[in-house]
Amino acid sequence: MTSKETSLDFIYREQQELAVYGGIGALLGWDQMTYMPPAGAKDRANQVALISRLSHEKIISEEFYNRAYDLCNSSTFNTLEDRDQIVVKKLFSDLEKARKIPSWFVEKSAKVTTLAYAAWEEARKKKDFTVFAPNLEEIITLEQQYCDFIHLPGHPYNSLLDDYEEGMTTDILTKEFTVLRKELQNLIHEILGSNTYQPHLPQKQTLSKHQQNTLTHIMLKQLDLPKKQFRVDVSTHPFTTALGDEDVRITTNFDRPNPLFSLFSTIHEAGHALYELGLPKDKFKDTVISDAASFGMHESQSRFWENMIGRNSCFWHYFFPRCATRFPRYFNNVDQHEWYRIINQVQPSLIRVEADELTYCLHVILRYELELGLIENTIQVKELPQLWNEKMQEFLGVTPTNDVEGVLQDMHWSGGSFGYFPTYAIGTIYAAQLYHQLLHDHPETIDQLHTGNLDSIKQWLHTHIHQYGRQYTAEELIHKTCGTGLRSSVFLRYLKDKYYEIYSLK
Amino acid sequence: MTSKETSLDFIYREQQELAVYGGIGALLGWDQMTYMPPAGAKDRANQVALISRLSHEKIISEEFYNRAYDLCNSSTFNTLEDRDQIVVKKLFSDLEKARKIPSWFVEKSAKVTTLAYAAWEEARKKKDFTVFAPNLEEIITLEQQYCDFIHLPGHPYNSLLDDYEEGMTTDILTKEFTVLRKELQNLIHEILGSNTYQPHLPQKQTLSKHQQNTLTHIMLKQLDLPKKQFRVDVSTHPFTTALGDEDVRITTNFDRPNPLFSLFSTIHEAGHALYELGLPKDKFKDTVISDAASFGMHESQSRFWENMIGRNSCFWHYFFPRCATRFPRYFNNVDQHEWYRIINQVQPSLIRVEADELTYCLHVILRYELELGLIENTIQVKELPQLWNEKMQEFLGVTPTNDVEGVLQDMHWSGGSFGYFPTYAIGTIYAAQLYHQLLHDHPETIDQLHTGNLDSIKQWLHTHIHQYGRQYTAEELIHKTCGTGLRSSVFLRYLKDKYYEIYSLK
Repeated sequence: MTSKETSLDFIYREQQELAVYGGIGALLGWDQMTYMPPAGAKDRANQVALISRLSHEKIISEEFYNRAYDLCNSSTFNTLEDRDQIVVKKLFSDLEKARKIPSWFVEKSAKVTTLAYAAWEEARKKKDFTVFAPNLEEIITLEQQYCDFIHLPGHPYNSLLDDYEEGMTTDILTKEFTVLRKELQNLIHEILGSNTYQPHLPQKQTLSKHQQNTLTHIMLKQLDLPKKQFRVDVSTHPFTTALGDEDVRITTNFDRPNPLFSLFSTIHEAGHALYELGLPKDKFKDTVISDAASFGMHESQSRFWENMIGRNSCFWHYFFPRCATRFPRYFNNVDQHEWYRIINQVQPSLIRVEADELTYCLHVILRYELELGLIENTIQVKELPQLWNEKMQEFLGVTPTNDVEGVLQDMHWSGGSFGYFPTYAIGTIYAAQLYHQLLHDHPETIDQLHTGNLDSIKQWLHTHIHQYGRQYTAEELIHKTCGTGLRSSVFLRYLKDKYYEIYSLK
Repeated sequence: MTSKETSLDFIYREQQELAVYGGIGALLGWDQMTYMPPAGAKDRANQVALISRLSHEKIISEEFYNRAYDLCNSSTFNTLEDRDQIVVKKLFSDLEKARKIPSWFVEKSAKVTTLAYAAWEEARKKKDFTVFAPNLEEIITLEQQYCDFIHLPGHPYNSLLDDYEEGMTTDILTKEFTVLRKELQNLIHEILGSNTYQPHLPQKQTLSKHQQNTLTHIMLKQLDLPKKQFRVDVSTHPFTTALGDEDVRITTNFDRPNPLFSLFSTIHEAGHALYELGLPKDKFKDTVISDAASFGMHESQSRFWENMIGRNSCFWHYFFPRCATRFPRYFNNVDQHEWYRIINQVQPSLIRVEADELTYCLHVILRYELELGLIENTIQVKELPQLWNEKMQEFLGVTPTNDVEGVLQDMHWSGGSFGYFPTYAIGTIYAAQLYHQLLHDHPETIDQLHTGNLDSIKQWLHTHIHQYGRQYTAEELIHKTCGTGLRSSVFLRYLKDKYYEIYSLK
């Protein structure tokens, strides 16, 4: 430290260095998923471990904590500018939380999850949950210990949720999800039972990888992502990552059976990317507030673009003829109305990541209920496959034929990411709330969609969500923007308006 | 340190961590040259700076030095296995050298060269050396200070050379280069004056990027690089980098005017990659000896594959018909004999990286003479453009029309890499010495080339060069393999045999 450096300067400098570690970590991860030769994995594991260790050492360092503590608790605090005060408070709270977890626990978790991931892969290969069960038991014990360390008020699960969805509680979630689950089941039942529902739409023609690639680039051009700060690559599972505030990358995949997978996954990831590119800049770049408000809020941005815009009839009114000009054989096979029904096809299915807009949240609520039970010890690991299958039948009327189609389908549990799943539904609900508010504030949005103009939408999301970063929690931000917190009734209204129209109901 | 950890364990662990930093640094560099969006540069600079700082802090740490010192100077040393002794000695000598350079100097150099690189780019844009001259003056002052810090015996320039070519001296180089320069000038004069020399061979047809890419992959398949440990990407300037001992990557470029550039640059980089993939493994992976013997030795591998094999008539006897089958329009345009003349065309030219096998070393010797003069203060920076042009005329009979074609063509000086250029000629000479020795030891190599079998050649290089890593200096290794140190006469003999035959001389 130089003699003139204030504690405020110090904590900004330390946050900046943490962000540099974050960027390096993001590159190591990105490369591993995109270009790394397979044999590079062993050295890569050491590279990732070193960066994680150095970053963690900084987060738990005494000086960092003491400086943040002093800033929070001295008279200096009131002399700080408003946004500096927010940074100081958020940072102190983050550091306090990190210090609740002993180092031995961090190391043990890393080891247990590394082994669990391998066991999960093995179990998938053998289509046999029992291969993974002992590892999952260990992980649940760790998750329960974690809850004890963090020890937030209310349900133990709140301590898990908080890592992904700051301030969110099981009280709010269980209330919203209970209504949502029931209403979704009713709505799906109503649609599947209607005489306008077609379970099998005309067979989709295939699109070559090259054509899929062209199509995603036409869409990205329409979304107008900044070329100098953004790129697209290919990976098995699409994702978004930020290597710096002006280096945001998404991936897609052209090998899925559904030739439209790459298109919609690209819109989805582009939604994440726009959020990353819009986070606080300049002085607040690389601080605790230059991050998303929550995982749910991040997901709201991706699902907003994927579903509210990417599967919107007004937008396709503009976009369909343009695609048809470029790929006449593919698009002239259907008319625009039929196309709209194809991309919004409702079809209860087994795999979450392939689920349609209407059934998706039921996959999430199922996982939430199981996670709650596992953390409460009211569900035992060995019961999971059967419970999973029963719930699938109850929620969606389909039953997995093996564990890979069921309880083994997601990698989250093998990584110890309990509390993550709910954010997918939270994001979906937030997306509908934002869309509702946008149309309320700017009814002209519909006309803009008809002409393919997405600029005002992007600007609105930036003004109301992106620019604040983590300055507010997701619930605070959605309240500030939409007048209420998480409200699944808004999402249900959106679904009914959309799908009643598609299936000519009511 | 754990209680049972010996000093030997300690220094191996520290070297391993340095190698992890090295791998991360290599990834940061690779990504910057291949995929990074342009706006990512600012954050990337911070990422590179952090890794460099952490790595440097480890290199100059007291404990690391003390442990290595104790190991070298205590009775323990004699109890160590042979190869451990070599590691300990090399490491201690590396650490001692690093500690000769004060931290302020490292930081100052980083700043000066960053600015100098920008000035060099600006000067190239304006085709005006004077824009870069003040920065180059600063750099030369730094280089002279560096020589004072390192202070090896003999000419000050030896301290610069040693970073790239351990143990090499101006005494050896000046002697070899003086002969080489004279003989090359004579040989070029003889060839250009012969009535069999054609300055303009038939116009080459173009190959599309896609075709160039296919051709390079046919060649890589022939070279049989291990797919799981290796990949090829595209960058402006081709290079090779190792992110781990089983993650080696090369790049090429398909945008050059010469459609064969990508093919020969790929063979060149593949030569570097084979060396990296063959370095010491297991216990000695990630140690000071799991590195190339020198930059010159590295270059000998790339030039061996590019010129001795890639431009070899016996190899093309096998390879030409295969290429012709794949690209009939391109290859059937010429016969095999004419093709061989095309890929070995001698043509004095202005740009080093585009120079042919015969004229290449004169470009290097020119730079060596200028560097010596600058370090000795017998040449002033402001005289450089004129001296450059005069020497080009004297050595090769061509004169640049502007500074971009002349003194501004290479980036090396802007980065403070004085002492680097000679390694290009050293590598070229070593390559000829290795080729000579290979044919002497294994005359059957010629038959193998006729059948496209490259395995024995790869094995021979691995046995004699790669597997030793940095266990010996390049001069020791070439002596061990070929019976002499650097010997330009062997290279000249090789050139005469080859080009007299091509031009039917003597």
